[in-house]
Amino acid sequence: MENTHNFFIPKTNLIGVGAIKDLPNQLLSWKLSKVLIVTDKNMIKLGYVENIEKILKSLFISYDIFDGILHPNPTVSFVEDGLRYFKQGWNVFKRDYKLIISIGGGTNHDCAKAIAAVAVNGGSIIDYEGYNKITKPMIPLITINTTAGSAAEVTHTAIVTDNTRKVKMVITSALLTPFISVNDPIFMTTMPKEVTSSSGIDVVSHAIEAFVSTEAFPITDALALDALRLSFEYLPRAYENGNDLEAREKMMYANIMAGLAFNSAGLGYVHAMAHQLGGFYNGAHGFNNAALLPHVFRFNSTAIPEHRILKLCEAMGTVTHHKEQAINIIIESIKNLSSVIGIPGKLSMMGLEEGDIEELANNVMQDICTLTNPRQGSVEDIIDIYQAAL
Amino acid sequence: MENTHNFFIPKTNLIGVGAIKDLPNQLLSWKLSKVLIVTDKNMIKLGYVENIEKILKSLFISYDIFDGILHPNPTVSFVEDGLRYFKQGWNVFKRDYKLIISIGGGTNHDCAKAIAAVAVNGGSIIDYEGYNKITKPMIPLITINTTAGSAAEVTHTAIVTDNTRKVKMVITSALLTPFISVNDPIFMTTMPKEVTSSSGIDVVSHAIEAFVSTEAFPITDALALDALRLSFEYLPRAYENGNDLEAREKMMYANIMAGLAFNSAGLGYVHAMAHQLGGFYNGAHGFNNAALLPHVFRFNSTAIPEHRILKLCEAMGTVTHHKEQAINIIIESIKNLSSVIGIPGKLSMMGLEEGDIEELANNVMQDICTLTNPRQGSVEDIIDIYQAAL
Repeated sequence: MENTHNFFIPKTNLIGVGAIKDLPNQLLSWKLSKVLIVTDKNMIKLGYVENIEKILKSLFISYDIFDGILHPNPTVSFVEDGLRYFKQGWNVFKRDYKLIISIGGGTNHDCAKAIAAVAVNGGSIIDYEGYNKITKPMIPLITINTTAGSAAEVTHTAIVTDNTRKVKMVITSALLTPFISVNDPIFMTTMPKEVTSSSGIDVVSHAIEAFVSTEAFPITDALALDALRLSFEYLPRAYENGNDLEAREKMMYANIMAGLAFNSAGLGYVHAMAHQLGGFYNGAHGFNNAALLPHVFRFNSTAIPEHRILKLCEAMGTVTHHKEQAINIIIESIKNLSSVIGIPGKLSMMGLEEGDIEELANNVMQDICTLTNPRQGSVEDIIDIYQAAL
Repeated sequence: MENTHNFFIPKTNLIGVGAIKDLPNQLLSWKLSKVLIVTDKNMIKLGYVENIEKILKSLFISYDIFDGILHPNPTVSFVEDGLRYFKQGWNVFKRDYKLIISIGGGTNHDCAKAIAAVAVNGGSIIDYEGYNKITKPMIPLITINTTAGSAAEVTHTAIVTDNTRKVKMVITSALLTPFISVNDPIFMTTMPKEVTSSSGIDVVSHAIEAFVSTEAFPITDALALDALRLSFEYLPRAYENGNDLEAREKMMYANIMAGLAFNSAGLGYVHAMAHQLGGFYNGAHGFNNAALLPHVFRFNSTAIPEHRILKLCEAMGTVTHHKEQAINIIIESIKNLSSVIGIPGKLSMMGLEEGDIEELANNVMQDICTLTNPRQGSVEDIIDIYQAAL
């Protein structure tokens, strides 16, 4: 009965309202070294980058800012631009970057992970698609997170779109685990409504997929169920009023907890299928997840034990003792939450064209998130799910 | 409303039946380096040390074994013996130990943390008593855990007894976080009955104290409550039949989860008071906890919000909606569990002498675990609790 589950997480996680104030302590040992900030122009405009610059200056840490992340869902070209910037800075000052700090949401953290890994391992980020292809430790990465969210600030996965193949590559390696994560809800109050809803429903999809995963275990179960509880209670509030700091704080916790859960338990068809949509149409990842969740859950439900279905239902707010009833309640609860937070709900609204479905479905079978889905399906099953969610 | 909670944990945690088989992968980058194993003679006799030796040999990693940990509750003298051994090995082979591997339960991990920290930071372990006194990163430590337990294999605390003062020192620092933890229940099946019960009730006390702590937050709450659920279900089974691998596995998870909870949320009076008993009489830590738990919980209960008391009660297996009733059920549940697993239940049975109580109570006020207790009491309150538990 061998049954092993590796649990990876940054060693140090600064969490909570005001957590950023502890960052200088963590940076003390980097005094006088050189740092690369990886971010986007919006983070600069919002003043978040300046916030970190002040801390670095106070510690006599020199830095450069790469702000070439131009849109959500990072592409190979952003990573290559970042690497060029990295090497340039290196040559001019004759000093290596000893540390990378990413400021933003999952897009920026994933891009920073890719830059940090390729800077050391060489080649192109495309070479590392899949599981455990990276061999050398990346440049230490501190993630300052501003969404809730992808949980990329704590996970050991980077998602990077290869535009030539229209594929969102999943790059997973324990060596991609950030060094320190910072989750301060104060940085999350400025999320626009559609980012709150898209990233928030991503948290819900992480929690559900981690809980029903074939690799779930008691630690990930505890975290996933409570992430779900928090999301169903606080996501509508965070969506309604972005300045509701309590709701932002609770969604930040839900984000971390769901992230730690899926980081070790894995995900499933929702993500495997949403990745393909992202690669083809670059829509909001969370919206794709939201449209797929009810249909994938219906498909998976025959393979999930009754007592676990009931627990999932209870975490969404309803106690029942009947599996079929619970399945229906879960599906309705997801649809209801999506609609309350303004999510379109159908894949056609996010650009899915029926003619692309077969190609998408074939690509799904290559995505490593399929490995931990509780029920293994055929390409035809995947096509059916895309059709149902259309 | 600043409210920050740092979450510290080893970056890599190998967990589950057969987890040890993944250790060689994690050791690849240590090839050809030199390792110090910190353990005790019983671990050698059980063959666990040989297990690790084989892995090290296969990777051409040379090692020495310090087996000078002579009894539970490590003393300053064990640490000093270990440090002498450490420096000796260093001189003879002209090569530093690059890594320390502790094999055993909390005693061995705590002793190894102290050796790893003082070897780098200098002075005596006594210099580092308290919070965040260590300034330089310790020698990387891999903890191979054989109890469930102290959770010392994942925490950033070391408990070391200073016999001259009869005080169990609490040494806490993020820099004491192990590098990799290994929790393989196969190594836990040989725990004698009294170690199963003492370490198992320690898990329960960690979960309860972390949940009622003033520093509890959603991540620690989720972990603490499920640790409690698992303990109440599986501890009697693990006690009854040590070879029940499912029960050992579930208690291993409970141990990690309660450990991660208290590592970030802190503990309370049960531990502050048990530490003093350990310093005076060197009894089983868990048995002291078990005797104190009901009385400390009664004392604290006025300061714990009703909805949290009800959750705690539910995690122990009973749903009720009345606070007073829940408090009584919780106390009875703890006493009942203790009795089922053969715990004496009264401090006098563990050596407590009434004449020592005043000195013990004064020492309690210096223990950092008091800081996160939900209700702050006077020395007289502490004396009253000791008397009640006598």
